[in-house]
Amino acid sequence: MTELIDVPAGLRNVVVTTTELGDVRGREGFYHYRQYDAIDLARHKTFEDVWFLFLEGRLPEPEERVRFAKELAPLRVLPGELREILPLVARAGGHPIAGLRTALSVLAAARDLPPLWDAGPDRRKADAMLVCAVTPTILAALHRLRAGLEPLEPRADLGAAANWLYLVSGAEPAAEHARAIEQYLIATVDHGFNASTFTARVVASCGADVVSAVAAALGAFSGPLHGGAPDRALASLDAIGTPDRIDAWVRARISAGDRIMGFGHAVYRTQDPRSVLLREIATGLGGDLADFATTVERRVVEILAELKPGRELYANVEFYAGVVMELCGLPRALFTPTFAVSRVVGWCANVLEQAAGSKIIRPAARYVGPPAPQPVS
Amino acid sequence: MTELIDVPAGLRNVVVTTTELGDVRGREGFYHYRQYDAIDLARHKTFEDVWFLFLEGRLPEPEERVRFAKELAPLRVLPGELREILPLVARAGGHPIAGLRTALSVLAAARDLPPLWDAGPDRRKADAMLVCAVTPTILAALHRLRAGLEPLEPRADLGAAANWLYLVSGAEPAAEHARAIEQYLIATVDHGFNASTFTARVVASCGADVVSAVAAALGAFSGPLHGGAPDRALASLDAIGTPDRIDAWVRARISAGDRIMGFGHAVYRTQDPRSVLLREIATGLGGDLADFATTVERRVVEILAELKPGRELYANVEFYAGVVMELCGLPRALFTPTFAVSRVVGWCANVLEQAAGSKIIRPAARYVGPPAPQPVS
Repeated sequence: MTELIDVPAGLRNVVVTTTELGDVRGREGFYHYRQYDAIDLARHKTFEDVWFLFLEGRLPEPEERVRFAKELAPLRVLPGELREILPLVARAGGHPIAGLRTALSVLAAARDLPPLWDAGPDRRKADAMLVCAVTPTILAALHRLRAGLEPLEPRADLGAAANWLYLVSGAEPAAEHARAIEQYLIATVDHGFNASTFTARVVASCGADVVSAVAAALGAFSGPLHGGAPDRALASLDAIGTPDRIDAWVRARISAGDRIMGFGHAVYRTQDPRSVLLREIATGLGGDLADFATTVERRVVEILAELKPGRELYANVEFYAGVVMELCGLPRALFTPTFAVSRVVGWCANVLEQAAGSKIIRPAARYVGPPAPQPVS
Repeated sequence: MTELIDVPAGLRNVVVTTTELGDVRGREGFYHYRQYDAIDLARHKTFEDVWFLFLEGRLPEPEERVRFAKELAPLRVLPGELREILPLVARAGGHPIAGLRTALSVLAAARDLPPLWDAGPDRRKADAMLVCAVTPTILAALHRLRAGLEPLEPRADLGAAANWLYLVSGAEPAAEHARAIEQYLIATVDHGFNASTFTARVVASCGADVVSAVAAALGAFSGPLHGGAPDRALASLDAIGTPDRIDAWVRARISAGDRIMGFGHAVYRTQDPRSVLLREIATGLGGDLADFATTVERRVVEILAELKPGRELYANVEFYAGVVMELCGLPRALFTPTFAVSRVVGWCANVLEQAAGSKIIRPAARYVGPPAPQPVS
């Protein structure tokens, strides 16, 4: 018998790979992209800067920034191969993430994307850039088609975040809204070795094409246990309704054994730095919703500390993400798709890093059924 | 810092889960489905019997077999939601496996399949049965549409293997061909914890729907490192051409450092039991190709033993699978899709087993880049 190696359930803390893409330090409430504090990047850089950083390992020089924007512009345009089929994909209904998977799968087939295993580094990078650039265009087109509207052409004069808001609404967004969404997008490109990122790397380790890896990641991402769905926390705010109802609502949920969506994280044992940034953004945008959210956050954290002492439960990225998106005018059906717009850049960076290696990720299972073989009667 | 756990590269031999679905014993050249020798099942049972075994944990009683066939028949029919879009999916081109992923993704959206996490065991099983039953119908329809032919309706009077051959060709297959393909299908439903099966389980562990898990598995399956593509080995037979050229061809490949497709396996250290069965089936069907394949196999194994002593390289499942499919009249473009027709049953059984647990599979990566944080200049 082969010697099997037992590890904690769910492979928790088991090292699958080395990475130069970043890390999360849960006890410090800190995470980084390559060598930079991710929150610093969100404060001071553009989404394209950070995208470049993930691809190239360094921030762009001014002329590289211009060149990168020029490379991206044509990749954002809805591919001709999707124009006829996308209305049917929209009409099929279901979650936008499933629609994105369908459309990317068609695109991969139409372009006959090469397996990572056969493609050189330049081709891999080009395919990854296409997938990331076209993702918001597809998601916005599906959204508009479902609403009976024509998809819009991306504007080469707008950055990624402003383009996303424009493609959805048809109006050029206010600068403060575009910047708020850009900071959200930067803060959510990557976050350690989350389950969808791991899924993308497993598929990449088989040598498959970029879309196979991203389509797999989208599946993991759609799972209720994945985390990060910004609409769930906002639904809680709706359910609470007014400040005087916070305590009763939270206590009722906890005594029923339910989780409070938007609170607690698998890795952070202190404040989630993304939630700190997003709270600041929400407060900056202002209004009743931002005020109400900060009040709810404060009371929930206090009640959780009282009822679940030592568990260190704080607001996570979900909590303020929905508030920020609502304040920027995004419809709720596009909250999770907005998360996908940034995370696909993280998945692709991980896929490219994985493709540079050559070891398939293929663990083992321990058979615990009846002894075999029994006679086939 | 969290204590990270180092394990062998690629998680080799690392136990991710327990399973009652089966196991591979590489040194014995033996693998089993639940408590039965898989090759015994291929010799004595139908594909539907084995499918039932995976779902229910036991072989069906005669009346259960009838009921199971009755349940499957309507699930095999091409869903109305796909009739309009499938011609466009076919026209997009690419690999049939990408087309299958696209079609399943549309179906999941149209039916709004519930996450495994929210669905009860009956709903999960029903969704899994649908995916497995409709897979050959979709693959055959895509194949016919690309050839300019109308898709055919599945026949309720034919079993899974005969239906597959019928849906592809439009003719009721010879009994010996249907049985040969049925034995291939049975022998390839599952095989330990291969990379696509693991991928399906990772996505299932996030609580996503069945199609998300299967679409992810299809991506892994499409990777050149996954193994099992029966057309590759047949291409080698073509390249060799005649018996007198075997030695020169094999020696040239090995001195160039190339792998000989169809030989060697990650787990087996003796004959692959699937290749033993398929050789017997090929020989039984007879003809020049079967004779040539057995001659090539014998010489390749001898030359590998001479040039790579101690490596124990034998014919794997790929080698005779292509021969058997060619002898049964399947076009080469459908060799890998035929593999998918059986393997999807194994993936779904794994997905259902994973869904019964509740632990997300989320390992870790070790950051090895420059120290963070550096100032964002």
